[in-house]
Amino acid sequence: MNPSTALLTDHYELTMVQAALASGHADRRCVFETFARRLPDGRRYGVVAGTGRVLESLRDFRFGEAELAYLEEQQVVDARTLRWLADYRFSGEVWGYAEGEIYFPGSPLMVVEAGFAEGVLLETLVLSVLNHDSAVASAASRMTASAHGRPCIEMGSRRTHEQAAVAAARAAYVAGFDSTSNLEAGRRHGVPTAGTAAHSYTLLHGDEREAFANQLASLGGSTTLLVDTYDVRAAVELAVELAGPGLGGVRLDSGDLVSQAHEVREQLDSLGATGTRIVVTSDLDEYAIAALQAAPVDAYGVGTRVVTGSGHPAAGMVYKLVSREGADGRMEGVAKASTDKASVGGRKYALRRRGPDGSAQAEIIGIDEQPGDDGDDRTLLVPLVRGGEVVAPTDARTARAHHEAARAELPQRALRLSHGDPAIPTIYLDDWS
Amino acid sequence: MNPSTALLTDHYELTMVQAALASGHADRRCVFETFARRLPDGRRYGVVAGTGRVLESLRDFRFGEAELAYLEEQQVVDARTLRWLADYRFSGEVWGYAEGEIYFPGSPLMVVEAGFAEGVLLETLVLSVLNHDSAVASAASRMTASAHGRPCIEMGSRRTHEQAAVAAARAAYVAGFDSTSNLEAGRRHGVPTAGTAAHSYTLLHGDEREAFANQLASLGGSTTLLVDTYDVRAAVELAVELAGPGLGGVRLDSGDLVSQAHEVREQLDSLGATGTRIVVTSDLDEYAIAALQAAPVDAYGVGTRVVTGSGHPAAGMVYKLVSREGADGRMEGVAKASTDKASVGGRKYALRRRGPDGSAQAEIIGIDEQPGDDGDDRTLLVPLVRGGEVVAPTDARTARAHHEAARAELPQRALRLSHGDPAIPTIYLDDWS
Repeated sequence: MNPSTALLTDHYELTMVQAALASGHADRRCVFETFARRLPDGRRYGVVAGTGRVLESLRDFRFGEAELAYLEEQQVVDARTLRWLADYRFSGEVWGYAEGEIYFPGSPLMVVEAGFAEGVLLETLVLSVLNHDSAVASAASRMTASAHGRPCIEMGSRRTHEQAAVAAARAAYVAGFDSTSNLEAGRRHGVPTAGTAAHSYTLLHGDEREAFANQLASLGGSTTLLVDTYDVRAAVELAVELAGPGLGGVRLDSGDLVSQAHEVREQLDSLGATGTRIVVTSDLDEYAIAALQAAPVDAYGVGTRVVTGSGHPAAGMVYKLVSREGADGRMEGVAKASTDKASVGGRKYALRRRGPDGSAQAEIIGIDEQPGDDGDDRTLLVPLVRGGEVVAPTDARTARAHHEAARAELPQRALRLSHGDPAIPTIYLDDWS
Repeated sequence: MNPSTALLTDHYELTMVQAALASGHADRRCVFETFARRLPDGRRYGVVAGTGRVLESLRDFRFGEAELAYLEEQQVVDARTLRWLADYRFSGEVWGYAEGEIYFPGSPLMVVEAGFAEGVLLETLVLSVLNHDSAVASAASRMTASAHGRPCIEMGSRRTHEQAAVAAARAAYVAGFDSTSNLEAGRRHGVPTAGTAAHSYTLLHGDEREAFANQLASLGGSTTLLVDTYDVRAAVELAVELAGPGLGGVRLDSGDLVSQAHEVREQLDSLGATGTRIVVTSDLDEYAIAALQAAPVDAYGVGTRVVTGSGHPAAGMVYKLVSREGADGRMEGVAKASTDKASVGGRKYALRRRGPDGSAQAEIIGIDEQPGDDGDDRTLLVPLVRGGEVVAPTDARTARAHHEAARAELPQRALRLSHGDPAIPTIYLDDWS
């Protein structure tokens, strides 16, 4: 039995449940939608990630004795609500964009249909997971697009919360990263892990020769040697002297990476180490990767910038009540009306409009009805939970494949790094038809 | 028994352990230091947070059967290393700044002395926790300083990873926030929790009157009613009509908060609800709080910006080998020499130089020796772990009190929000004496 995820929740969800139970509205059928009002400033697309983790967390969303004892002791809710929580088990329906899918402003990324109390309780957990993982995946996708097939290694664990690090490694993998430094992400999510040595390892030894010789003896000639602790040129020469021209790789973690990559490649080639890979790892982001594309680099290690969403650490998604049962038993669209946070009421359905060549043209959103498919289009909402049971895959590998395919549909302009508008427009069916 | 934290670690720590075991250097005495090369751009001080969480995680840093099985299956390390890991238990010494302490560039925030393999294994976990929690606390402290005693409520759980949210609530509390929306932070760390209702609660009902009446009936007249779902003026009138002038509070979550706060205060007062509090909660950060100080606001709810470090989601701390046993058995300072990431070798000791009035004047750092106390100074490194046993408090409340006292020593300029240099200089003893 996994630890309960039920208290990863805002206090006010529970007080709302209490008030709704008291008023008799707790079971009123409701539709909650998760969407982003806009993409981060200048971004051309977003990537949904975390869907699988939401579904896995949902299975563990139970109020056990320990959780109930805390709520009772702190008088968060009354006795009736505690009894209701003790029996809580999500029994509703969830649809959503498949994990790895591309999204745009207004895309209904996760749609929860349930009684009010059942659905409102999930708000914080759904948003925490999707906002974090999608922020990382959206940044990571720009990096892998910029790397044009050169492998990207996620190594930012030390720059984010220790559990966020595990999720970040997974999200980066979904968005095309090849591996991670994070061992728990390997164990928990099956992400391939990688790594060899840090500067501290070299400094531990009397000199670089001893450090390299010991590393090669223990990890073999296919290892990657870190060559920038003292003098890069001397270290590369030493590395090939000790390992032979079959050395697996060298890593550069400081300095001007573009010029160093050229120099090191030339030096390696001159020493016959033509197959030795050059890995670069210092403060990279999508822009640095793009700038290094013309340099002879074989792999990019990315840290801080990928795990913190490259300037946008939260995806800005919200979870809103958009439709609920009225007094007459029929579903009615609802929306906050005042000032700057107004949203569109009614349940959304979504379609990616595609041209005959399969290229994405628009995000079509129908309100209270499924938009018609022109023949080349792709329905975006898939069933995730039916009657409380998870019915969709939750693994990172499936999401990674989906992301690759979905991104390939985007027009070329979507992959530009410069500030721009969303790559395709979001069109509400009212406007379209 | 808590879950193991041992795989919250980068792959390369384990390959370094393997290589060091093979070469016979694994037990070589080493000193690793955690420090930040600089503060985030324009910040005048940083706040150390997460120290208590590091110490708690250290207790659970064990390689159990499940962890070892994963490492073996994936061939991360060899059989000898697996046997060594199976017996792993940190047996070294740790000193550090007390949690909640103020820091500056170069401050030796956590100093780990242990055999190489024992110490190097902690790098990722120490950095993940300190970089995350300190980033949040450093932002939070600017917010509470700007609020000048008005309560700040942390409510950003939905904008960060679900477990990072719990740690963020704790870090914000350390830096002077009064409460959090996050229930797990209440249970796990004793942070007071708060919250009443969201827009979805109002929209659930046929109209605002029904929603407010039900909330008041269930949660009592001391509750806070959210008044911006439709029309603020009408909602405030309705709120006082239903609750009476003793209504606890109203919350504004959108629009121009400054002008609305004035209007709502006037309206509340005219209705006799002079004690009804106004809580504001829309996209606040330290600058918005400062701008609202002249408005009649009673509490600030802060979300995204506090949990994401207000533009600086990672504190940029590094964990470096600075000293190790040489071939002659004596400790020697070591440091990476090349290019842009050079650091200062040797073990650091630190003192906050204070004037006779107790005001902080400089961060004095001694290399391989404790700086002399002028009589008014404060020693900054305290023992955290002795012989593998945690000897310091790990709770958030102690850290919160420490932060309040440490911040009070800073010169007034430290609390300005504008871009500036570190509030006091960091002086290495070589330069000072």
